[in-house]
Parts: sequence; C-alpha cells; structure tokens
Amino acid sequence: MKKTIVDIAKEANVSVTTVSFVLNNKADSVSKETAKRIKDIANKYHYVPNHFAIGLVTKKTKTIGLIVPDISNNFFSELAKSVEHYCNNSGYSLVLSNTNNQPEKDFEMVDLLNNRGIDGLLIAFSQTEDYPERERFLNALKQIETPIVAVDSKIEGIDLPGVSIDHVKGGYIATKHLIDLNHRRIGCITGPAHSYTAIRRLKGYRNALSEKNISYDENLVIAGNYRYQDGYEAAKKLLRMNVTAIFASNDLMAYGVYRAAQEAGKSIPGELSVIGFDDLVFSEIMTVPLTTVHQSVEELGKKAWELLFGRISSEESGADYIELEPTLVKRSSTALRKDETGK
Amino acid sequence: MKKTIVDIAKEANVSVTTVSFVLNNKADSVSKETAKRIKDIANKYHYVPNHFAIGLVTKKTKTIGLIVPDISNNFFSELAKSVEHYCNNSGYSLVLSNTNNQPEKDFEMVDLLNNRGIDGLLIAFSQTEDYPERERFLNALKQIETPIVAVDSKIEGIDLPGVSIDHVKGGYIATKHLIDLNHRRIGCITGPAHSYTAIRRLKGYRNALSEKNISYDENLVIAGNYRYQDGYEAAKKLLRMNVTAIFASNDLMAYGVYRAAQEAGKSIPGELSVIGFDDLVFSEIMTVPLTTVHQSVEELGKKAWELLFGRISSEESGADYIELEPTLVKRSSTALRKDETGK
Repeated sequence: MKKTIVDIAKEANVSVTTVSFVLNNKADSVSKETAKRIKDIANKYHYVPNHFAIGLVTKKTKTIGLIVPDISNNFFSELAKSVEHYCNNSGYSLVLSNTNNQPEKDFEMVDLLNNRGIDGLLIAFSQTEDYPERERFLNALKQIETPIVAVDSKIEGIDLPGVSIDHVKGGYIATKHLIDLNHRRIGCITGPAHSYTAIRRLKGYRNALSEKNISYDENLVIAGNYRYQDGYEAAKKLLRMNVTAIFASNDLMAYGVYRAAQEAGKSIPGELSVIGFDDLVFSEIMTVPLTTVHQSVEELGKKAWELLFGRISSEESGADYIELEPTLVKRSSTALRKDETGK
Repeated sequence: MKKTIVDIAKEANVSVTTVSFVLNNKADSVSKETAKRIKDIANKYHYVPNHFAIGLVTKKTKTIGLIVPDISNNFFSELAKSVEHYCNNSGYSLVLSNTNNQPEKDFEMVDLLNNRGIDGLLIAFSQTEDYPERERFLNALKQIETPIVAVDSKIEGIDLPGVSIDHVKGGYIATKHLIDLNHRRIGCITGPAHSYTAIRRLKGYRNALSEKNISYDENLVIAGNYRYQDGYEAAKKLLRMNVTAIFASNDLMAYGVYRAAQEAGKSIPGELSVIGFDDLVFSEIMTVPLTTVHQSVEELGKKAWELLFGRISSEESGADYIELEPTLVKRSSTALRKDETGK
C-alpha cells in the first residue's frame, strides 16, 4: 500500500497542509528542521505527491482546457499541437475537448472542465450569434473564476481576452486577389451562417466587391459547415451559375471545390480560379497547389497560451483581443480570367 | 466566497467523506435523514462538488489520458476524435498529450498523467524496440496502478491489452496488389526503423515478395518518419533506381511520393504505381485518388475505449490484444505495369 500525504503528516506530527507546502517548496513559515523531517519521511516511502491532495491545498492543477469545434479539421489539430507545445514548456498539460460544432456542447464542456479543476481555459467557440441558450451560456461563463481566452473566435456580450486572425481582412484580400485577376462572378462558400469566423470572412468578401462597385449577388453565396463535403456540394451549385472563381472560406471546402470542378470537367485555374483560407499543409501538395489566405496556427497557439498564462499567473488581466495579420499565398489555383472570346 | 465540502461537513456535523459519499450517491450506509440534511445544505449554498475533494475520497477523476506521437498527423487526430466521442458518451473526458515521436516524451507523459490522477491511459507508443531507457520505462509502466491500453502499437516486455490493425497483413496486401499488377521493382518507404508499426508493415512487404520468389533488395527500402517530407525525399531516391511502384507505409508519405513523381515528370499510375496505408480522407480527394490500405480509425478508437473502460470498471482484466482487419481500397494510383516495349 502506497503511503499518502496523511500518513506522512501523522508520522511527522504536522498538518496535511504543512506537508503539502513543504513538498511544493512553498513553506516559508515552516522551520528548517520540520521541513527536513517531512522530506526525509517522504523520501523513505518514495512518496509521489497525490494530485488531489495538492489540488485541495494549492487549488492549482497545472492543467488547462482547450475546446475546439472539430479536432479532425487540420486547422484545429495543428492548433492543439501548438498550444500543447507551449503549455508543456511551461509545465502545464492540456485537456482537449471536441464539440463537433454543436453549441450546446460548448456549454457542457465548459461545465465539465470547470468542475474537473483546470487553471485556465482556451475556447474556440462553436457558439453562434443566434444560439437560443445564449443568455444562460453567457451567465455560466461569467461565473467561472478561472481565466478564459477565446481562440479563433469571440463571443459578443462578454469581454474575454482572445486571439484570432483578422478574418475580415483575410476575406477581403482573398476576394480582392480574384477581382485583380479580372473575375466578376465570384462564388463565395461561407462557414456556418452565424459563426464568428464565417460572418467576418463574408464581410471581407463584400467589402472587396463594393470597393470595386461589383454588386453583391446573394445567389452566389452558399453556406457550408467548413467541411470538405460542404465545399463539394456548394461548388456543384455555383458551377451551374457560371462563376469564374470561387472563394472558399476554408481550405477543406476548397478541396471539395476541386472535386466538383473535376467532375464538371472544369480545369483549375484555366476555367475556374479557386482560393481558400487557412493554408493547411495539404494545400501546398495538391496537384494544383491551392492559392489561399495563410494564418499562422503556430502563432495563434503561442499567443493564446501567452494570454492565458499571463492571467493564470496573475500578472495580466483585462480583455485584450489580438488580431493577427493574414497573408495571401499565391500558388497555382488562381489565374487571370479569360475574356469571352476565350483568350 | 464559495462554500466547500469542509463547510458543508461542519454545518451537517458529519465527516467530509460522508458528505462526498452522499453527494456522489454512494452512501448506502448513511441514514436517509442525514443524507437529506447534507443535500439540503449543499443546495442552500449552490454547492458544486470540488474535483479534488471528490478525487481524494473516490480516487476517481472520470478522466482518461491519450498519448499520441503526432496530433498533426490526421490518423492520430481522427483517432483522438473517435476516442473522445466514445469516452464522452460514458461521462469521461480526455487528456491529450503529444510526444512528437520522441520516446523519452512517452516517459515524461506517462509520469505526468499518472501523477495528475487519471482513471486510465491509452498509449500509441513512440517507443522503439531499441530505446536505450527501455528497462526503466518498462519498470515505470509496471508500477502504474491505473489500467493502460496500447493503441496502434504494442511494447515487448510487458503484457498490456491493446488494439491495432494487423500491420503485417496490411503491408502484405498492399505489396501483393502491386505484384498482381505485374510490378517487380517495388520500392518500400517504411516508418521509423524500429517502431512497432513500421517493422510489421515492412514484414508484410517481405512476405508478399518471398511468396512470389521476388528477391528482397534492401536498396529499395528506405526509412522515413511517417511525414510528408520523408515520403518526398525517399521517393526521389527510389525513382533514380527505376522502381515501377512504391509502397509508402502511410498515406502522408504517399502524398510526398506524388510530389516527387510530379517533379520527375513521372505520371501516376502510367509510369509509377503508388499505394499508401491508413486511408486518410485526403487520399480520396487527391487529383489521382490514392489506392491504400484502409484501417478504420473509428473502430480503433471504439475498441481502445472498450478495452480501457472494461478495466476501469473492473469487469475485465488480462492482456487481450485485438487485431483489426485491414482492407485494400483500390483507387486510381495503381495500374498494370507496362512491359519494356511500352505497351
């Protein structure tokens, strides 16, 4: 039978709290002799501190939570990898939860992780701006005492620190690139209708159009769910409407556009220009490498951890929201629109 | 200030353990009156059970750990998603750790997760069979009291239950498919030289060759690290040795082969047949869809969780090792070898 902190406290004739403080080197008020006696007893039994006993005294778990909408989307698995790298470097481990894009799971997960005892929480919200349980969710968030940082998302109605790419600007530079290549009928495949990222990427698309006095045609805008299959289905519809270019709001959906174009016998970029958003590793290695909006998921994970760690260690507070700069990565999937004579 | 379990115990004039048992519905020996009194006090203060306090009494965290070598490899992010789905369904949450293919991180992570208090551990080992710290690692594993299940891997020298695809058979059917298409100079890109999965997939390759009396040429076998870049580098070498087909031991490396073939001006499958292993979602959507060995990551996650849960709930024990059946998915990247006259 393993010895516990209680056994050590008994044998040393001190309180459990004193043992915990000594073994965690936080015992300024304990005499050197007592500290040595406690450490000797702990060594004698090869004592390994019990997570629960430490937690009960220090209220720290050295664990953070990360909630993502879809871990099988490479953007989020790369993000998890980046966050895990930085938090491990600081001696923290990561509890990962996946909400499958269901806002009600944000709720459950926040509750679950909070009851389990974590020192901080990073959330890439699945929450949409029309979520019916919104008020109750905001109240739940407000009651949480541990620091929360929003990643790749933001939620209106509560001031949380966070980090995300400038999605509006990303949508703008993608669309502007297509306009500069002389495209006018540009299809747009958005993310889920009311999600933070989808609304902003679409806004960027509209801004670029209106800047060049191209009228916004809502028939050319189709909502997807950021998955390959959605891009494929939406592109089939858009191709019937004779678009010459498509802005897919993420790379996975752009890959779906490729498949629809191939089935329709449309060459990329000869007959259809395609631009994505995210710059996943596959975009570079497609047979027609994908032009896309790059966001550094490495940087996103790093900044998210820094914001959270600053708040865990109480050095910082406030609701700073950092926006990272998107950049255009020109590859082979976009080209100058041919005019009607086919030149 | 939130009320704690200690406050409730004081006010109810019972022990902390009694409160914990009552609030967790495990208090068969507590009188109904006492139980009601405790619950009323807890309700009055909107008491939320403290993870540490519960854990100290029940020794259960309702959390499991999953250690993977590379979360950015889609195979493992899909696996994490599957495990997370099944363990959430049973009310457990998942702590994820990523070892970046470094065996010494297996060590750290096992230690870290174990000290943090988890009810069970799933490990996709990065451990290789020549890991210098092997003995110490095995001893550490043997001392862990929580159940451990190996996933997609196995470690010699310790009897652990586990689940993985039949890697030997997978390597065999991939290679046999190429031989059946009349290929004789078949390059093989393996995983890391001494890893469990890599050794077995290579063995399958050798078995298929020897069955058809094709001599094994070690020059045609190049080790990679299961990453895209490794497949690309290895394929450049293999193409200089005039192979007509390549078996890449995972799909990510097969994608690297595509790029090397494209740069060398070799068409797939006209001049080079390529087969992978895993059947990632991208393999279906490549411009030349990849023929590959399918393993059901969904099934792998499900079985892993079932093995672990059986042991957590003490209904099962023993070191059952389940091998799942691989299947060949024929797509467009493999074709009959042309003979020397170019037919």
